Amino acid sequence: MNVTLKEAIEILERTPQTLESFLSGLSNPWLECNEGDGTWNPTEVIEHLIEGEKTNWIPRMEMILRDGESKPFPPFDRFAHLQENAERTIEQKLQEFKTLRQQNIAKLQELVDPETHFELTGIHPAFGPVKARELLSTWVVHDLTHIAQIVRVMAERYRTDVGPWKEYLGILKK
Amino acid sequence: MNVTLKEAIEILERTPQTLESFLSGLSNPWLECNEGDGTWNPTEVIEHLIEGEKTNWIPRMEMILRDGESKPFPPFDRFAHLQENAERTIEQKLQEFKTLRQQNIAKLQELVDPETHFELTGIHPAFGPVKARELLSTWVVHDLTHIAQIVRVMAERYRTDVGPWKEYLGILKK
Repeated sequence: MNVTLKEAIEILERTPQTLESFLSGLSNPWLECNEGDGTWNPTEVIEHLIEGEKTNWIPRMEMILRDGESKPFPPFDRFAHLQENAERTIEQKLQEFKTLRQQNIAKLQELVDPETHFELTGIHPAFGPVKARELLSTWVVHDLTHIAQIVRVMAERYRTDVGPWKEYLGILKK
Repeated sequence: MNVTLKEAIEILERTPQTLESFLSGLSNPWLECNEGDGTWNPTEVIEHLIEGEKTNWIPRMEMILRDGESKPFPPFDRFAHLQENAERTIEQKLQEFKTLRQQNIAKLQELVDPETHFELTGIHPAFGPVKARELLSTWVVHDLTHIAQIVRVMAERYRTDVGPWKEYLGILKK
């Protein structure tokens, strides 16, 4: 087991500022590119991360601490953010993600004592019993997978442009 | 063809600040983790990016403009940075990368006129003729592939920790 509360928070607190450094001010072709029909562009990934802050990570952690295995988590709708119609800039969305994340890290620190809570369990609707420390680890890796997705989607724009170098660029292998 | 000088520079100028936001101040287990023997940790990826700024991108662009196809690029040693013995902090390395990148973007803007130079060619030691716009596109995608590598290496640390969620986390598929 590698996860610790301190090191997990190191990543959770860096993700919003990392994505802000990367995406803020970019021109639309970068923000709106995707990998084809039914795939997400970088802006949609940020909306998905916002949705997770609102309805997934902390609500599930609270259920583990409060309800244990007495009732399953409500399923997380991974497509909920695609309903969002509000016209907001990427900078506004990044700011919302940052604010929600700061609040959620504060809640996490208030709620969870690694010594006594890490092995507590809740019921995932698909997986059955899951531990608090697995939920925390997943929150971190979920950030990492979506950072990887954003850069992969953007690399796709230049798939043809790189010419023969495609062979050396792992991100274009698929 | 998607590449433009303006949009390529948007990524090139964001990479150092993005990596600084993500890696600066992290504790050593994150900076020193890798994917097994012979693979790079996040710190080594930064050293490789520094090496590219010194010996790869701008020197090759200058050769295209000056020498055309009259002589091949010297090969880029992708492992040169592993010789680096100087004990420097990650923050010092990130700062060096940022400084070199700023200088190289300034040189790029000074050297390259997209209207007249994009189709000029040089000789890659393995691929043969390559165009200036392909070199520029590759510089961008090379940044993206190494950002993806860093987050993938870090996700690997929590491969077991996420428990059953592994199934939902694309970054752990391999």
